[in-house]
Amino acid sequence: MYAAKHMKWWGWGDEAVSFDSNAHPGLWPYAKEQLEVQADEDTAPVAIEAVQLREAIRHEGFLSELRQGMRADQIHDSRRERVIHAYGKGFRDLFRMRRGMAEGAPDLVLYPESEQDVLITLRAAAHHDVVVIPFGGGSNIAGCLERSDTRRMAVSLDMRRMRRVLEVNVESFTARIEAGAFGPDLEEQLNSYGLTLGHFPDSFLHSTLGGWIATRSAGMQSDKYGKIEDMVIALRMVTPLGVLATRTVPKSSNGIDVNHLCIGSEGTLGVITEATMRVHPRPDSRRTHGYLFLDFEAGIEAMHECVRKECVPSMLRLSDPDKTALSLAFKPPSSGLSQAVSKVMKSYLKAKGFDFARACLMLTTFEGSKAAADRERDRVNAIYRRLGAVDLGSGSGKSFESSKYDFPHIRDFLLDRGITSDVSETSTVWSNLVPLYQATTAALRAAISESGVRPWVGCHISHTYQSGASLYLTFACRQQHGREMPQYLYAKRAVQQSFIDQGATLSHHHAVGTEHLPWLTDDISPLGVVAIASIKAGLDPDNVMNPGRLRPSAAPFEEWLRVGDDTATAKLLK
Amino acid sequence: MYAAKHMKWWGWGDEAVSFDSNAHPGLWPYAKEQLEVQADEDTAPVAIEAVQLREAIRHEGFLSELRQGMRADQIHDSRRERVIHAYGKGFRDLFRMRRGMAEGAPDLVLYPESEQDVLITLRAAAHHDVVVIPFGGGSNIAGCLERSDTRRMAVSLDMRRMRRVLEVNVESFTARIEAGAFGPDLEEQLNSYGLTLGHFPDSFLHSTLGGWIATRSAGMQSDKYGKIEDMVIALRMVTPLGVLATRTVPKSSNGIDVNHLCIGSEGTLGVITEATMRVHPRPDSRRTHGYLFLDFEAGIEAMHECVRKECVPSMLRLSDPDKTALSLAFKPPSSGLSQAVSKVMKSYLKAKGFDFARACLMLTTFEGSKAAADRERDRVNAIYRRLGAVDLGSGSGKSFESSKYDFPHIRDFLLDRGITSDVSETSTVWSNLVPLYQATTAALRAAISESGVRPWVGCHISHTYQSGASLYLTFACRQQHGREMPQYLYAKRAVQQSFIDQGATLSHHHAVGTEHLPWLTDDISPLGVVAIASIKAGLDPDNVMNPGRLRPSAAPFEEWLRVGDDTATAKLLK
Repeated sequence: MYAAKHMKWWGWGDEAVSFDSNAHPGLWPYAKEQLEVQADEDTAPVAIEAVQLREAIRHEGFLSELRQGMRADQIHDSRRERVIHAYGKGFRDLFRMRRGMAEGAPDLVLYPESEQDVLITLRAAAHHDVVVIPFGGGSNIAGCLERSDTRRMAVSLDMRRMRRVLEVNVESFTARIEAGAFGPDLEEQLNSYGLTLGHFPDSFLHSTLGGWIATRSAGMQSDKYGKIEDMVIALRMVTPLGVLATRTVPKSSNGIDVNHLCIGSEGTLGVITEATMRVHPRPDSRRTHGYLFLDFEAGIEAMHECVRKECVPSMLRLSDPDKTALSLAFKPPSSGLSQAVSKVMKSYLKAKGFDFARACLMLTTFEGSKAAADRERDRVNAIYRRLGAVDLGSGSGKSFESSKYDFPHIRDFLLDRGITSDVSETSTVWSNLVPLYQATTAALRAAISESGVRPWVGCHISHTYQSGASLYLTFACRQQHGREMPQYLYAKRAVQQSFIDQGATLSHHHAVGTEHLPWLTDDISPLGVVAIASIKAGLDPDNVMNPGRLRPSAAPFEEWLRVGDDTATAKLLK
Repeated sequence: MYAAKHMKWWGWGDEAVSFDSNAHPGLWPYAKEQLEVQADEDTAPVAIEAVQLREAIRHEGFLSELRQGMRADQIHDSRRERVIHAYGKGFRDLFRMRRGMAEGAPDLVLYPESEQDVLITLRAAAHHDVVVIPFGGGSNIAGCLERSDTRRMAVSLDMRRMRRVLEVNVESFTARIEAGAFGPDLEEQLNSYGLTLGHFPDSFLHSTLGGWIATRSAGMQSDKYGKIEDMVIALRMVTPLGVLATRTVPKSSNGIDVNHLCIGSEGTLGVITEATMRVHPRPDSRRTHGYLFLDFEAGIEAMHECVRKECVPSMLRLSDPDKTALSLAFKPPSSGLSQAVSKVMKSYLKAKGFDFARACLMLTTFEGSKAAADRERDRVNAIYRRLGAVDLGSGSGKSFESSKYDFPHIRDFLLDRGITSDVSETSTVWSNLVPLYQATTAALRAAISESGVRPWVGCHISHTYQSGASLYLTFACRQQHGREMPQYLYAKRAVQQSFIDQGATLSHHHAVGTEHLPWLTDDISPLGVVAIASIKAGLDPDNVMNPGRLRPSAAPFEEWLRVGDDTATAKLLK
């Protein structure tokens, strides 16, 4: 079974794996040009010994209660464990870790191996006023794992030892899976039955089923398999009051759907310990093609037409011109896309009316039985062709498939060089996609420009629905020395505020965490906030579980933006 | 626009419409034979003047607060209005109404015309300790509309004047619709845009969007369009504290999904005033075929195979042998099915190995573009043929389509003749369908037999999902004089207990109401109950909204079963 190792404490992925710039020689020159980098910087992370850790709060009564039910090797308080569990992997997390700022690290790390272990922990925590923060793969980028209270003892509950597929019902296409199972863990076990969950988020290698459910995650093939909330049939969640459990039935009319109280609860109510999920036969055939569209609007129209015609491949992923240029810069020299867009191809495309400042790449995945996948490709090709697209073949698709989990490594590479980069994403209805895109990219570019550096903003559209799609923005800029965090937050705020102002939502699949809290009330209305606080009060009366989350607050923004007291900050805090 | 008239106060449907036994001459002879009816009884309902009404509780302060915001023609306290709004249309409701037992009638009936009217009502109710019970079409059969408290003044809030489609986004396939819109209301308005909601429950003519959402309703074409909870994109719900509102986005990751706190809330949190729904292009072509399978298991296998092959028509409805026999008895003499199963056909089928004591009817609806519907029919036919089915053609389908909203009238016809009948339904995973069917029909037959009469139990399976399907039981028996209600409740309890014992859910689409409350804790676990009570405490701190619902209670069973103090009752209350 895949070994669920920890990611590096200061960056993405396994210790041994990092971004290989030799394999992608075009990337750094592209970034330097786009971001107007004059001189190479070297901003490497500090050594782990130099990380500033607050002295751990130790509650002996709590510890002795734990030790009655758990073994010593499940209870850790080493520097390394505390640092690893301090944050997730958002820009704010990485920036602080690289500088050795880990004041929010937990005081203790626990590795439960059963529902009983979780129950013991939560009850002991309630008895001794200890905070519990559930930890899956630690990949969240919205601040879900961030400790909000440094006065109470805080425990990180790392679920990775609960990773088994417990039961598979092949006839009914359901599987009961422990929440600590990582993507490769559960796929390997399901594959042995000829099945797949069909959930492949960018973080697939480093995130868990429980984390996906607690944050309403979306995988790359959500167009076919749905978001994680569409896949949950039943679940068990341990709260400080005991175990909440639902039944394995396809659909019910048993009042308010209790599954949906647990899904998206971001660790604030309890710990999801297992879930019974819809699973699917593994597709016989799977192929990703690249297509080039004349412009972004034509690509959007093609996606929308696929949806209207009920001809939706398992992945539709359209990049805007800047993201397309980044994809081309990212490709290995020998890759299909580079070949495809070779000189010969370029003159062909120019003759077809393509302007490379406007052209957009669409990746499209066809899967199922060989015959069904071919049929689908034929139907999609007909739609795309009518909208002026050119089929680049499967080369660019293969290149995407081989590196699809590597993108988060780029951020570490850029951080080493004094470049800030991050992402924000949302969803909206079809009629609002282009206005939202235009308003938000403009707001984001303007916000970054205010710090005196050139912004890079790219966008892709993926995760289509009958009523709309998600819009995913990536942004980067040179760091403003001494004001890196306010600079980032100012940009982040601009994106999020634009999402809300334009009628979209605070996130399509990255959760509320800490970074999106200031927009929660706008998104779900004040009474939505009251409703969520009420569930919290009912299931976790002692506020043991991940306190501070799902409660509106401008805290992270206020704290950091006060650092620089200029006009921009004043404007932001108005 | 379709006039949303009230149903008759003592039975189903418009005053002018009742079951026409001349058009279905086979039904009563079939029922008499099956139920061993010796002599025709006549148990007509009492006159409305004879209905026993409790003296209305009047809160002058509440009334004067209402009158500041609403006109006199929105405020009613006549005998007729109170009687009409006393109950829904379950057996318990109809039995009591027909005997003039309307002690639970509301004290006042209000007809809001805007969100503001609803807000005024709820706030005034909170100020003056008045109970508010939202009322859509009044078609619920689980006791959702039943008043649980006769000490506080109770108001029925009838939503039928809020019936407009407010906004249609043709590009994004969404429509914002007022919650009081009845099925024909909203379909007529959507059809004018070439759209449909695709939600056609048995109660379509007499139920509302708000009622569907509050009870997690399912329509006949749910296989294609989903259950109502799958169609809600955003909604507004007025609570005593103000308006809860969500955003019109396809999907989000904004914490716990607040839509799902309102969906299924059964009037206990507030009043859903409008919802933005996914809508669909109206299909060009729509055709229902009947098929005959050798037995129930073969029919189930065929449904499951359609699901496995991702070839799911918009309706799959398989009747067991008894329900099939009832369908044949119900058909008009000239109908397609009777013709199809004519003597000639019968000998043909016998030659093919059909045994009419075991044969099962499957109705299947194909819709979409003409070409797509034909393609789907070809694929389905191939699956069915391999499993030994015979295509009866579109005659039986036409017959079903023309009378599909008439079935609830049969119950009134039977009640007039001293026959009790009702339904219970659930859902389960594929692997459990046959065991659940066998255990539950046996339990139900045994429970009815204990009262010394012959049971009739039929079943159909509809609403398929990748992981399972719903199981819908219809039962009937001669009434045990003086013990009609305990006899019914004893049977009802047997079905519901079997659902839970066999791992299924208390209801697939009829809500918890009053009748399913004793099984709520088993279904969603004690902490699920706590969670729901917590939301209630947060949004409705004065317990104004439909009190007593979604709180486990054996009340209706206890109250009625104590009437007869025999062994059976003792057993039930043990």
